[in-house]
Amino acid sequence: MISEPVWVDGSLPGTIDPRDRGLTLGDGVFDTLVAFGRIPFAGARHLERLVGQTELIGIIVDASRVRAGWDAVLGAADAEHLILRTTVTRGRAARGLWPAERPEPTVIVSATPWSASLLGRPIRLITSTIRRNPTSPAARLKTLSYLDNVLAAREAAEAGADDALFLNPAGMAACTTIANLFAISGERLITPPLDDGAQPGIMRALVVAAAGAADLAPLERSLTVAELLAADGVFLTNSVRFLMPVVLLDGRTIRAHGDALAVLMEAISREVLRECGYDPRTS
Amino acid sequence: MISEPVWVDGSLPGTIDPRDRGLTLGDGVFDTLVAFGRIPFAGARHLERLVGQTELIGIIVDASRVRAGWDAVLGAADAEHLILRTTVTRGRAARGLWPAERPEPTVIVSATPWSASLLGRPIRLITSTIRRNPTSPAARLKTLSYLDNVLAAREAAEAGADDALFLNPAGMAACTTIANLFAISGERLITPPLDDGAQPGIMRALVVAAAGAADLAPLERSLTVAELLAADGVFLTNSVRFLMPVVLLDGRTIRAHGDALAVLMEAISREVLRECGYDPRTS
Repeated sequence: MISEPVWVDGSLPGTIDPRDRGLTLGDGVFDTLVAFGRIPFAGARHLERLVGQTELIGIIVDASRVRAGWDAVLGAADAEHLILRTTVTRGRAARGLWPAERPEPTVIVSATPWSASLLGRPIRLITSTIRRNPTSPAARLKTLSYLDNVLAAREAAEAGADDALFLNPAGMAACTTIANLFAISGERLITPPLDDGAQPGIMRALVVAAAGAADLAPLERSLTVAELLAADGVFLTNSVRFLMPVVLLDGRTIRAHGDALAVLMEAISREVLRECGYDPRTS
Repeated sequence: MISEPVWVDGSLPGTIDPRDRGLTLGDGVFDTLVAFGRIPFAGARHLERLVGQTELIGIIVDASRVRAGWDAVLGAADAEHLILRTTVTRGRAARGLWPAERPEPTVIVSATPWSASLLGRPIRLITSTIRRNPTSPAARLKTLSYLDNVLAAREAAEAGADDALFLNPAGMAACTTIANLFAISGERLITPPLDDGAQPGIMRALVVAAAGAADLAPLERSLTVAELLAADGVFLTNSVRFLMPVVLLDGRTIRAHGDALAVLMEAISREVLRECGYDPRTS
């Protein structure tokens, strides 16, 4: 049993060829999920999205290879609850951005321990100087070309904040470096549409589906910074940290709506319990 | 002696940890140059730019480590003339886009044979649907987050073209997926400024410096597609292929200016001969 196993195309531990296009060109996509009690939560959804995103950039990967990597890593890890990161690259190919040959994709699965302490952390947000590029297919995918996210996260850290908000060129809020965005306004639960530069997050979809439990009507529409500042509550979502209340945006206080967040978290936790036999809120 | 040696932090051949941020996040930069007769052409300029670009994204790498990689690969390769690609990543770090710990950067140097057949190939260009993002620092760096370039190169290949032109959001020509852009208009040799999304190419700088030899006055200013179509000549530059005449743009013929290109190529070739003792036009 190992603390942080890494599986690469059947080898555990595995290494990467320095000529792999995932490294040389950021040419690939990834997915992150949590396995509770070694059972991937919403695994089928994550797998479907991952395979779909590889196809969007012209990589064909067999879902069974990804499943094999998940099984290997879940069997080898010593922790019960694990963050699984799956990476699919275009593989090793000759020089050139779009060579005629089609290499075999590389599949990488790594696991790190998950802890309930990751849940629900309050977030101080700044607005990044870097905007999402809606003309780039990569804006709607979890790609290996993530340097904009890295540099925006650096901006946040240097400003003493926890995360950075990306606006699109029209000034509409898109997402943060690691999360989708929601605003509560009256009885509406608003999240930016994918066309504004948001990612199709799995936790985003689960929260939209759970909105009724909190007596909220889900709505996809563009959000301005002014609307975020005036909202009854703003929160972020991702598959590792679930729901995170935003407490500050560029130094200005955001109203808290703890009741709605608690009800939504209760609904999501019930799904985890049903699927994985474990309540993620258990410390 | 090997055909395509790859050096990683002192090991030849070397492998990459799957948790390296260059792979997981496209978190690094690279450089490409040609060594003629095992002597890197414009090596000092390439090294200075590479180290400068690492610093811009917060990576500190010692130039002597890069030189050591170049020496190792040039000594091991069986070809006399080599394309050297140098990659510097932020290294292996804990999960998170901007972790507090500062890992040791990874330095990778790989070599592939260079051939004079790469020089001067005529280029059929299309305009990419993907625009450069001027708010992203990555637009002015040769980063490992190159998926936009990969996808634009795919657009070109699917359209039966050789390369794709990036415009910026204002509609000004910036560069192609692998090259800088020049237009000849009367006695002016025009190239887009870095602020329009162009990269600070080494060959770009050499061509600007050589303009006088072709009785041309170099000028950095924005270029529209209409100006490219009306120009007396359009060509691309990079450090591997030197000068490439553009013959078609989105299916429309571009005027040829072979005389100016021949004179510029003569001037650059003399520099290679002086520095490396070899004329790159020798077949």
